[in-house]
Amino acid sequence: MDGIRNFVIKEKDVPIIQSNEVLVKLKSVGICGSDVHYYKEGRIANFIVKGPLILGHEAAGEIVEVGKNVENLKVGDRVALEPGIPDRTCFYCKTGRYNLCPNIKFWATPPIDGVFTEYVAHPADFCFKIPSSVSYEEGSMFEPLSVGLWAVEKAGLRPEFKVGVLGSGTIGIMTLQSILSFGVIHVTAFDVFQPKLDIAKKLGAENTVSTKDSDSFRKYYDSFDVVFETAGNPLTTLETVNLVKPGGTIVLVGLTSTDRNSLNTNLLITKEVTLKGSFRYANMYPRAVELVSAGKIKLKELISRHFTLEQLKEAFEFTINNSDKVIKTMVNIE
Amino acid sequence: MDGIRNFVIKEKDVPIIQSNEVLVKLKSVGICGSDVHYYKEGRIANFIVKGPLILGHEAAGEIVEVGKNVENLKVGDRVALEPGIPDRTCFYCKTGRYNLCPNIKFWATPPIDGVFTEYVAHPADFCFKIPSSVSYEEGSMFEPLSVGLWAVEKAGLRPEFKVGVLGSGTIGIMTLQSILSFGVIHVTAFDVFQPKLDIAKKLGAENTVSTKDSDSFRKYYDSFDVVFETAGNPLTTLETVNLVKPGGTIVLVGLTSTDRNSLNTNLLITKEVTLKGSFRYANMYPRAVELVSAGKIKLKELISRHFTLEQLKEAFEFTINNSDKVIKTMVNIE
Amino acid sequence: MDGIRNFVIKEKDVPIIQSNEVLVKLKSVGICGSDVHYYKEGRIANFIVKGPLILGHEAAGEIVEVGKNVENLKVGDRVALEPGIPDRTCFYCKTGRYNLCPNIKFWATPPIDGVFTEYVAHPADFCFKIPSSVSYEEGSMFEPLSVGLWAVEKAGLRPEFKVGVLGSGTIGIMTLQSILSFGVIHVTAFDVFQPKLDIAKKLGAENTVSTKDSDSFRKYYDSFDVVFETAGNPLTTLETVNLVKPGGTIVLVGLTSTDRNSLNTNLLITKEVTLKGSFRYANMYPRAVELVSAGKIKLKELISRHFTLEQLKEAFEFTINNSDKVIKTMVNIE
Amino acid sequence: MDGIRNFVIKEKDVPIIQSNEVLVKLKSVGICGSDVHYYKEGRIANFIVKGPLILGHEAAGEIVEVGKNVENLKVGDRVALEPGIPDRTCFYCKTGRYNLCPNIKFWATPPIDGVFTEYVAHPADFCFKIPSSVSYEEGSMFEPLSVGLWAVEKAGLRPEFKVGVLGSGTIGIMTLQSILSFGVIHVTAFDVFQPKLDIAKKLGAENTVSTKDSDSFRKYYDSFDVVFETAGNPLTTLETVNLVKPGGTIVLVGLTSTDRNSLNTNLLITKEVTLKGSFRYANMYPRAVELVSAGKIKLKELISRHFTLEQLKEAFEFTINNSDKVIKTMVNIE
Repeated sequence: MDGIRNFVIKEKDVPIIQSNEVLVKLKSVGICGSDVHYYKEGRIANFIVKGPLILGHEAAGEIVEVGKNVENLKVGDRVALEPGIPDRTCFYCKTGRYNLCPNIKFWATPPIDGVFTEYVAHPADFCFKIPSSVSYEEGSMFEPLSVGLWAVEKAGLRPEFKVGVLGSGTIGIMTLQSILSFGVIHVTAFDVFQPKLDIAKKLGAENTVSTKDSDSFRKYYDSFDVVFETAGNPLTTLETVNLVKPGGTIVLVGLTSTDRNSLNTNLLITKEVTLKGSFRYANMYPRAVELVSAGKIKLKELISRHFTLEQLKEAFEFTINNSDKVIKTMVNIE
Repeated sequence: MDGIRNFVIKEKDVPIIQSNEVLVKLKSVGICGSDVHYYKEGRIANFIVKGPLILGHEAAGEIVEVGKNVENLKVGDRVALEPGIPDRTCFYCKTGRYNLCPNIKFWATPPIDGVFTEYVAHPADFCFKIPSSVSYEEGSMFEPLSVGLWAVEKAGLRPEFKVGVLGSGTIGIMTLQSILSFGVIHVTAFDVFQPKLDIAKKLGAENTVSTKDSDSFRKYYDSFDVVFETAGNPLTTLETVNLVKPGGTIVLVGLTSTDRNSLNTNLLITKEVTLKGSFRYANMYPRAVELVSAGKIKLKELISRHFTLEQLKEAFEFTINNSDKVIKTMVNIE
Repeated sequence: MDGIRNFVIKEKDVPIIQSNEVLVKLKSVGICGSDVHYYKEGRIANFIVKGPLILGHEAAGEIVEVGKNVENLKVGDRVALEPGIPDRTCFYCKTGRYNLCPNIKFWATPPIDGVFTEYVAHPADFCFKIPSSVSYEEGSMFEPLSVGLWAVEKAGLRPEFKVGVLGSGTIGIMTLQSILSFGVIHVTAFDVFQPKLDIAKKLGAENTVSTKDSDSFRKYYDSFDVVFETAGNPLTTLETVNLVKPGGTIVLVGLTSTDRNSLNTNLLITKEVTLKGSFRYANMYPRAVELVSAGKIKLKELISRHFTLEQLKEAFEFTINNSDKVIKTMVNIE
Repeated sequence: MDGIRNFVIKEKDVPIIQSNEVLVKLKSVGICGSDVHYYKEGRIANFIVKGPLILGHEAAGEIVEVGKNVENLKVGDRVALEPGIPDRTCFYCKTGRYNLCPNIKFWATPPIDGVFTEYVAHPADFCFKIPSSVSYEEGSMFEPLSVGLWAVEKAGLRPEFKVGVLGSGTIGIMTLQSILSFGVIHVTAFDVFQPKLDIAKKLGAENTVSTKDSDSFRKYYDSFDVVFETAGNPLTTLETVNLVKPGGTIVLVGLTSTDRNSLNTNLLITKEVTLKGSFRYANMYPRAVELVSAGKIKLKELISRHFTLEQLKEAFEFTINNSDKVIKTMVNIE
């Protein structure tokens, strides 16, 4: 990407790997909502694109070379790639919350290049083997799945809980399936677009609620033990405090276009709500491998269309022009 | 109280106790901020005074009669009184969060009468013995102390944490001392009034910050592992997300005059903050007894002036007219 | 029961209910291992039968009368009955751990009578409505299911965990299904009897291990994130520390015939294991209702044979004589 | 150390530092109980000395050179040294429990050399600056203090808890002070040696109990919310379950000479006790710095005698011959 809505193809040397790294030939890379924001607007929240930047951070590929200290991987292994490499030495890393590492190098977050490219050198411990029953396309979707799993990790779910998920886009669907993977029986999915609700229903939501009508939330007030906000919308963010039961938990995942949003803090206090921000993830790829391998979480159903790396601009434009029904656009690299 | 800013004295029969109750002759009853709100405005948040109401819920007294099934208390015992009696059978009661009981009967919360009165019948297990070294006035302040202890209970404090307390009124000071009682070394107290900051300093705050200047918060951004909001002010509520470190915790205690307040939810997400509402308390009186008896928490220092029950109106007016420096107004009953 | 291995049938008045109670006509009562111990030996651990005692505490029935303060139940409701009534006022009750209440009245724990009888008066909040799709026999089994759910509640399970369950009797099978209900993929069941392992396999265990061979544990050393001990056997108790991974959790549920057992405490320390005792349960019936109603947990499969109340002695003898394969013996009351 | 009870002095090259390391000139190194075990017996639990080994892992020193990527430290800084370097890539490291890293390199744990030596190269993030008010001798004792802090970290202490500490040697005293640093009021210390109890009393224990009499435990049965076992003795380990209250927590820290010990697991179950093994520590040095700098934890009082590096054998023999009263023997390096 070189300027807004402009892609340029460049030749780059194949990277040289360090002793703890592997060289990965990329196979499938999904387009994330943040990629689309950078492409369209050059920014998302406080992350701003200032020079040429390779987008793409949802990736899977094949190992073609291993560093000399790498023991658990070998050439030919098929791997899903975790895209953020923390410094491993700061307070956050050493206490197990490396997603908050201030020095993390996260693909396609300016100025770190992403992986709409052919090869990448990557630390072995951020590569996760996938079995042959899991495709590269599915492996690339472990990244948004990890966002959902992390949000759920924070929620302390129990099987009998009533759970609400606001938003049924990629992250909403990933969150929905993560909730179900913890054995939760009653999940209600909310969205403004019916095609997305249909997918939510198909993938296990007990109820779906169309939020076109602004009154649609009211009948669910005080209904949910846990509410997940994935829509990144000021209105749905505001409704979370109404929807949750006294003593319940809200997890905010979706960033909104404006920083400041209204919340009924009095109600949050008298209902004694716990509200948690959830940002990226830590240590969720092993869980993703297990759940997808066991068939407990379905990823193929989320792919709306497949493109090649040469069709990258086309893939982005398709995603933008079909935002009412596209869940995931996939780019395959040959 | 019979109408706004109007008190009437009425004769009432001495209550008849049940088998699990004791009869308490009240000795000291503090004036709470909520009492003042009812007196001045007839309401606080959604709690509205509709008929005559006895105010007062911060109380201590002497036991003058015990029910036949009461084993742990006897006539002459000096006790602090926990003012909210839950139903003991609902989900919240049975899971240890009786402060959220929907059927709780809480003194001086409409339409339940409070205890600016001579006698009250009370369940024995909501009466807590205080040693002779603790005065009735101090015992009555176990109630606001419990609010502070409960807020702190939610925060997972560690001794090395940097902690900020917004507001240095009664609840702010109680929260400050509760924080210190967990061994925390570095606590910064914020308030707009210097006399309140002076008390905070005297009672153990490492730093105090005057918030008269709207820029006073900026130098503490990203500084605190935990931030407590006790001021009940939209501005301080907004600043909590700026003040807390990534990965930190905010506890909201103070109700604001408006329900909806602005929060930077994007920052809350990318910093992965946990924000908890804290409402009243559960099971904090035993902790209050231990801490005050051991001299770890000081209560006498908070009393600004003493009145008698006959001077009740005067006591309320004094409190209203000196809001810049009054921490606690105490009413003693003879 | 009047002396060891002796039952006597007596006429009793139908109980009079209190205002917060309901009168229940009992329909199905299961025989628990503790009932069998009392019947055969007159004791279990420190609980000793000293006079005549009605056994039976796993029960479901129909409501035939409701007290005047009861709002959520009506005559004709089908209910599962939680058998232990705590005092509601002690420290344990008020902090949500009423299973530890020192004054709890638990059916068929000497000297409290149980419910191999026709009618019982019971507090409404310890009666849980079951839908018509759930039989009384299943409802009676919510009791041992709650034991399994409570053990699992303590374990902090995650879907990718490897979990081991030692013992595949009633509690083992209930624990196995409770684990699965949290979405866990890989569960290994251990028992000495093959018929019990067959049921474990049928109900969802990934692997089963016959422990007839004393070396059978060795290949699973350091294999499990969580180990549940339900067999109540000194050998399996000892093996828990070997089986669990470093950093893992052990939950002990099964009481052993001897009080003191060997544990490798050095290994427990260097592996930094958490070991938790689990006793009865608190607040698990609502979860049982949801899971069984949704078909997530199967109970019918556990019933080995059905008897009538008149055949009570026969039912106990059958249970004793078929201990290698009986999971649950059910007594129906007409 | 070259064989049991034999020390040899050897010349070694000054180590070459990596880019993320610093070179430290050692100043003070304490003798740990494990050092004494290796010296006397060549082993402790499963850790066995097979060749020459440098002992010593409780250390502080001065930085004399910094690697090119080191930002937070400079030549001349006085630092306490955390002795175990984990691999930073395994499951345990990435989830914040690096003390369980299977590849950790821990000083003076065979075959890794310790620091009874002049210089050591060490990763910068395992060096912690100490202010001038804290001596090198105190800095070296951050290591055993961290063991105490970690045990306490696992216990969920509250100020009103009654806490028991079994054993008043170095780890017992460190645990005692760690408990007090969390604001706990009532701590009872147990030991067989009166001089050690005297130090416990001086450093803040409310009560001390001599365990020379085997009946000395009985009067404390069911007394403690939390019990810490630091004596590493089968008898005290056994007593933990008796001493703890129902619902309470036991933390085992002390390794015993025999692996298998008796525990009353039935009582552990019916009291629903949580028992946790505690091994070394993770992320405790920053807490140690704060607590010692603030004067909340006292270390000088623990030093029984000072030796030089040349007197190393003498220092070990002194420690062995005065085990009834020596808390910490300190070796200073010039």
